[in-house]
Amino acid sequence: MPDTIFAKILRGEIPCHKIYEDDHVLAFLDINPLSRGHTLLIPKEIAATLDELSDDSAAALGRALPRIARAITAITGSRDFNVLQNNGARAHQAVFHVHFHIIPKADDGSGLGIGWKPQQLDPTDAATLAAALASKLTAA
Amino acid sequence: MPDTIFAKILRGEIPCHKIYEDDHVLAFLDINPLSRGHTLLIPKEIAATLDELSDDSAAALGRALPRIARAITAITGSRDFNVLQNNGARAHQAVFHVHFHIIPKADDGSGLGIGWKPQQLDPTDAATLAAALASKLTAA
Repeated sequence: MPDTIFAKILRGEIPCHKIYEDDHVLAFLDINPLSRGHTLLIPKEIAATLDELSDDSAAALGRALPRIARAITAITGSRDFNVLQNNGARAHQAVFHVHFHIIPKADDGSGLGIGWKPQQLDPTDAATLAAALASKLTAA
Repeated sequence: MPDTIFAKILRGEIPCHKIYEDDHVLAFLDINPLSRGHTLLIPKEIAATLDELSDDSAAALGRALPRIARAITAITGSRDFNVLQNNGARAHQAVFHVHFHIIPKADDGSGLGIGWKPQQLDPTDAATLAAALASKLTAA
């Protein structure tokens, strides 16, 4: 597991604009924000992608998200926002330590851009796929 | 609070391709997927946006995410994926019941499109903003 900038922030070797911390998570301002208030929420557990994360860390991240979102909407005045978490270089991940972006959609239009090209779900494939996923989840 | 298609799915009035359920959450295939395996994870609690959600529901969503991600990567073979959660019409939310998208980035390039226009963080504003957010979070 290569060292990351977020691991260095967690160890206090690099400063950050911290906004929240508990036993499991740390939240701070993104230094290259898409909009004012763009925040990163990371687990203290070292894991490159979400699928590698423990239940406890994942639950703590989930619990922190609405609290941080409430603070961001209250302080920035941007009511709308996106939460984005990328896994893998092809999915736009740049730092290989799990992180959630909380990105206000500001009045000036700044924020996350989303490209959305929906397909039709094939009913036959969907039944097979859902059964396979459900089976895998039950076995986990 | 207007009724939503997800509330109807939770009540069993509309069918879904279910892949996971526990006391707090339900996960099922998106009927208009961006890529094969595109899944929606929703709380059973009725809340339009993430900032309205209880700690317990939010923690349960967080806990479920890596489990679902592991099943999706194993079954679809798409190692990379995005997690996206939209709040408000301007942030691309279409159904006003909290939902996380888990979207594989497939070998054919299908999946989430991301528009990313980073700014520079202004150090003076950042210190003020971080202090205000931290104060709001401590008060919460």
